[in-house]
Amino acid sequence: MTAAQSLKSAPVDIVLVDRTNHHLFQPLLYQVATAALSPSDIAWPLRTTFRSQPNVRVVMDDVQAIDRRERVVQVREGPPIPFDMLILAPGSRHWYFGHRDWEPHVPGLKTLADALELRERLLLVFEGAVRRQRTAETKINLTFVIVGGGPTGVELAGALAEIGFKAMRPDFPSLPWEDLRILLVEGGERILPGFSPALSAKAKSALERMGVTVLVKTMVQDVRAGTVVIGNQPIEAAHMIWAAGNRASPLLESLDVPLDPSGRVKVRADLTIPDDPWLFVIGDAAHSAGKDGTPLPGLAPVAMQQGRYVAGLIKKHTPPEQRPPFVYADRGMLATIGRAKAVAESGPLQFSGMFAWLLWCVVHIFFLIGFRNRLRVMSEWTWYYLTFKPGARLMYWNQRKV
Amino acid sequence: MTAAQSLKSAPVDIVLVDRTNHHLFQPLLYQVATAALSPSDIAWPLRTTFRSQPNVRVVMDDVQAIDRRERVVQVREGPPIPFDMLILAPGSRHWYFGHRDWEPHVPGLKTLADALELRERLLLVFEGAVRRQRTAETKINLTFVIVGGGPTGVELAGALAEIGFKAMRPDFPSLPWEDLRILLVEGGERILPGFSPALSAKAKSALERMGVTVLVKTMVQDVRAGTVVIGNQPIEAAHMIWAAGNRASPLLESLDVPLDPSGRVKVRADLTIPDDPWLFVIGDAAHSAGKDGTPLPGLAPVAMQQGRYVAGLIKKHTPPEQRPPFVYADRGMLATIGRAKAVAESGPLQFSGMFAWLLWCVVHIFFLIGFRNRLRVMSEWTWYYLTFKPGARLMYWNQRKV
Repeated sequence: MTAAQSLKSAPVDIVLVDRTNHHLFQPLLYQVATAALSPSDIAWPLRTTFRSQPNVRVVMDDVQAIDRRERVVQVREGPPIPFDMLILAPGSRHWYFGHRDWEPHVPGLKTLADALELRERLLLVFEGAVRRQRTAETKINLTFVIVGGGPTGVELAGALAEIGFKAMRPDFPSLPWEDLRILLVEGGERILPGFSPALSAKAKSALERMGVTVLVKTMVQDVRAGTVVIGNQPIEAAHMIWAAGNRASPLLESLDVPLDPSGRVKVRADLTIPDDPWLFVIGDAAHSAGKDGTPLPGLAPVAMQQGRYVAGLIKKHTPPEQRPPFVYADRGMLATIGRAKAVAESGPLQFSGMFAWLLWCVVHIFFLIGFRNRLRVMSEWTWYYLTFKPGARLMYWNQRKV
Repeated sequence: MTAAQSLKSAPVDIVLVDRTNHHLFQPLLYQVATAALSPSDIAWPLRTTFRSQPNVRVVMDDVQAIDRRERVVQVREGPPIPFDMLILAPGSRHWYFGHRDWEPHVPGLKTLADALELRERLLLVFEGAVRRQRTAETKINLTFVIVGGGPTGVELAGALAEIGFKAMRPDFPSLPWEDLRILLVEGGERILPGFSPALSAKAKSALERMGVTVLVKTMVQDVRAGTVVIGNQPIEAAHMIWAAGNRASPLLESLDVPLDPSGRVKVRADLTIPDDPWLFVIGDAAHSAGKDGTPLPGLAPVAMQQGRYVAGLIKKHTPPEQRPPFVYADRGMLATIGRAKAVAESGPLQFSGMFAWLLWCVVHIFFLIGFRNRLRVMSEWTWYYLTFKPGARLMYWNQRKV
């Protein structure tokens, strides 16, 4: 999207292909899953975004393969789409470290459907717990295990704790609150490994104060229906959410170029594939080496800067030998934990608490596309901050006729 | 809900049972179906509404039967719920005049799931039409038939025409617009039969100016997959929506009292069933005779006034012989057709056009529960009125894993 927008006034014909009709602001997806925001607050139709950009044609279709010989993109429904230049940004999906059978038991959070499924499950479990007698099963039904202590896992654990222990409390007075357990499981030394150790520790103690059990240096050994085995101990839990591994889109295999162990394309300094100066791979799907040689993280700012960089090369039709290498301007990282609780790091600066949280709010509001969404999300957050009444606590996902 | 809220300070224990966790503001459901509003704009969680009313316990469950002998309500999941007094307001569902096999082909619009299903279908058909070559099938795919010319059918037809012919136009420049057809089929003499003939005629010509084909005195004779037979003529249409007949909930059969041909309970003047002075039936489920002897219409104002009336009897524990009969205070009727187009009737007063539309907006905003929803809907409408960019044009309903 950033690349297409950056090519606004360029003399090119752009075809934007996506399998959905909307762009999803992933960093706030966990807020839909925890009933704080509605789907339409964090997603917007691609066609509306490009309504006034006549050089863009939007195609809603599912890309099946890249045919480099014919120079066409093969899609599921429509005819093949020919191209002169191609920007691939297919992102990543969950990766269960080879255990594909875990997926149905530990779903991840990538789409609006995932988020609504989780929201409905969360709400249903509370309704079920107040309807039935308290039994041994109640505790299992109220146990949530989040696998992965990166920003997604931390934000999800914090939001679950907030909605579970605080926002829901006045509405379910008869719920056995002592049975509600939220476990955050991280295999590494500490949660938020991308941040400094001091901020990691702050995030951990903030989560613990909110009622989350944080387990570090704990690997998930096995997952079965209703049970996760961690540290050689089986834990019965009705709800498990995967926020651990990612793997780049399998679409990249059709390029027939070297991939790294995470399935990402090893791009050159100008983000092209080894033997095609006009085929770019950006975002989560690209293994693009940073200053110290390690691959750049799979973050939205990286992808957006790459989009702008590639659009610049296309606009000027820069020949390969004259291209400056892509350099990521790292402005820092943010993760929120709960109301008025967040951690932020930018170069040598470190913040936590209220100030970091306000910074987080401002940055996320800023990156939402469109005035309408900014206004809606801002008003929803203000409302929730003041009243603790999440607005989107609706169940309709499983009303569908079968 | 109105009855429970009216009993706020009464010394009674209230159990509110509903199969969903939210109250849905049905009059605006068609706006969710046409992508103008989001589900959370027109629905709100019951528990939040009754958070500060300690005499209400909310149970999310599906009522299966009323056992009058044991005086319990039988539900699907939880234990039976005993009662001293009972208010039944189970509403109605679609009625296909005995043709149950029509239902899968002509779905109605009663739940958020129905609305999201229709929204997704509407958006998908536009995406499909620009992706594929124009063929004979394109016209069928772009034909919408709405059965029933009451307020629901008229509002839906108007909203479809507006989104189809106006709001979508800039986003799908290559769509063959001449293939888009919206048919409104009404069996009676005129659409909006509850309104005066003059307003009916105004609504008809307003719809026709918007591109809707209005067929009156036209009965649906048969419905098959992709085809509806009207006036002995088969019409091929990929989308058919039922807004014609309603029938009261089948739950009422378990009461074992006389029902009218629409399945409604023939209640006495105090809205009780013939042989139980503390078992009330209100809303769409009740056949309550109006001043002229005809049953009161199935409208929200009738149901709400009945709820308040019954709450009054319960509060004062009025014995049957001292009860004044229920009298409906008819404040008029409203139906909207499109942007700045509506009809309104209140006693001898009749309005149409911009003024009626503003009146409609004010009334509907007023009846939405809660400051948050009022603000959101008001801002969405203002946004849509100014920009013609509907905010909720998202597809995610069929993303669910199978």
